[in-house]
Amino acid sequence: MEPIDGKKLSSTIKEEIAREVEEIKQAGGKVPHLVAVLVGHDPASETYVNNKEKACNKVGIESEVIRLEESISQEELLNKVDELNNDPKVDGFIVQLPLPDHIDEQKVIEAVDPKKDVDGFHPVNMGRMVLGLPAYLPATPAGILEMLKRYNIETEGKDCVVLGRSNIVGKPVANLMLQKTTPGNCTVTVCHSRTKNLEQVLAKADILIVAMGKMEFVTADMVKEGAVVIDVGIHRIRSDKTKSGWKLKGDVKFDEVKGKASYITPVPGGVGPMTIVSLLKNTIAASQGRIYG
Amino acid sequence: MEPIDGKKLSSTIKEEIAREVEEIKQAGGKVPHLVAVLVGHDPASETYVNNKEKACNKVGIESEVIRLEESISQEELLNKVDELNNDPKVDGFIVQLPLPDHIDEQKVIEAVDPKKDVDGFHPVNMGRMVLGLPAYLPATPAGILEMLKRYNIETEGKDCVVLGRSNIVGKPVANLMLQKTTPGNCTVTVCHSRTKNLEQVLAKADILIVAMGKMEFVTADMVKEGAVVIDVGIHRIRSDKTKSGWKLKGDVKFDEVKGKASYITPVPGGVGPMTIVSLLKNTIAASQGRIYG
Repeated sequence: MEPIDGKKLSSTIKEEIAREVEEIKQAGGKVPHLVAVLVGHDPASETYVNNKEKACNKVGIESEVIRLEESISQEELLNKVDELNNDPKVDGFIVQLPLPDHIDEQKVIEAVDPKKDVDGFHPVNMGRMVLGLPAYLPATPAGILEMLKRYNIETEGKDCVVLGRSNIVGKPVANLMLQKTTPGNCTVTVCHSRTKNLEQVLAKADILIVAMGKMEFVTADMVKEGAVVIDVGIHRIRSDKTKSGWKLKGDVKFDEVKGKASYITPVPGGVGPMTIVSLLKNTIAASQGRIYG
Repeated sequence: MEPIDGKKLSSTIKEEIAREVEEIKQAGGKVPHLVAVLVGHDPASETYVNNKEKACNKVGIESEVIRLEESISQEELLNKVDELNNDPKVDGFIVQLPLPDHIDEQKVIEAVDPKKDVDGFHPVNMGRMVLGLPAYLPATPAGILEMLKRYNIETEGKDCVVLGRSNIVGKPVANLMLQKTTPGNCTVTVCHSRTKNLEQVLAKADILIVAMGKMEFVTADMVKEGAVVIDVGIHRIRSDKTKSGWKLKGDVKFDEVKGKASYITPVPGGVGPMTIVSLLKNTIAASQGRIYG
């Protein structure tokens, strides 16, 4: 078994991105500029946005956080989105989710100019991705494909099983693994809460991508010998063995499954660190007009 | 085995649509108006467009065919698209594919206002469909789901195998069968040219949707007893037994497979007639603002 070290890989890629940004600067190009819009004070969102800002600083991408009060009206937020859409300084921006209940999240997502939608959440980018056209890919699916690529994991003709059908992970990653690309070209099966014969389906999986949100659901007996196991789950449980008093777990029972898998991502330190790399890459692509010209 | 009679079903649905259009007229509403743009003189395209026009006439939808010379420039065609986008009389329009080689098809597809894209080919509609948002669905996938619904075929938790990953059938129908809807909620597997163990995958299929473009590829030994078999293929071969001198065949060896299937669509008279129904439904939805308000 080889663990997939997402933390190390993301560091390597960040160094590559930093060199790329430096080259852009040297050539007199525009420094990529990312804006994060944070509404309210959700602690998890604060952490995510801070991490994104740190990562930008590290690679030389200009970043900016726009903090808005939880009480902001939908109209005011949409005006802010419109302003960012029209600000030539801003190459890409994200509106950190979730948004307060009084705001229609989907409306905000669709208000973002697809050309600046570096989260890849706009239906245009989702549609283009499914159709095999250039698109900003959502962070987690793109991070998973990058891991497979960097670890030279063969995907063509393999049975890829995706557990979960969320809009931000399951559906897009299934559609990506299906494309005529490398990584890709898999026979893809998507399982979910209504799947009746889960054990049978999982037993055939050469590549198993688990994004269902159930802690340690996937056990060793469910996994084929030699499978590649990608764990997207993240759950926080109390622990008296860590300094913080918390411990993170995935959707996969790592200690058990690692003995059967050929490759496996740990939690933490697997898929998580790769998501931010996708965002940085999308931001550079935006500043260079690589997707929409 | 019950054959799925797409021809009869489409007639029934056209009668329903005709009643609906009549009610809209009675209530003083706008008569739905569909435009088909036909570039050049491809005989198959001529036939499709004529059939669409006939179907519109039959149900009371206003229809119009704009014929453009094969020599039209891309810019002129895009101007025409723009004109239709801005014509309040036109609820929806389609640009019949394929287009001449000197025209970038994708560019034309993306120039159509998604609100008038009753073919469901624009990335916005594809993305919205995948995300489970209201969208114009592409004709063939929507027709397949309508057949499953009208024949009360249970789909929830079933293994649905899609053979083929085209942008107009395989990918969208796979994404639809996956949604939390009825029909839908299937465990969906997509197979294609790179799939290695096709026989094994097909052997598990409760619902088999074949859209690969290989004549009579699927034989009885490949199909599970009691499966629902949907054949999207259409191939024209010479025949001395028909008046026209031609005979149509599907991707499924019908005479063989019908003995094993619980439901099966014939070719012709299966999926084909249903596609035009989808277009009519999208046109009414467009005129009533049901998708985009």
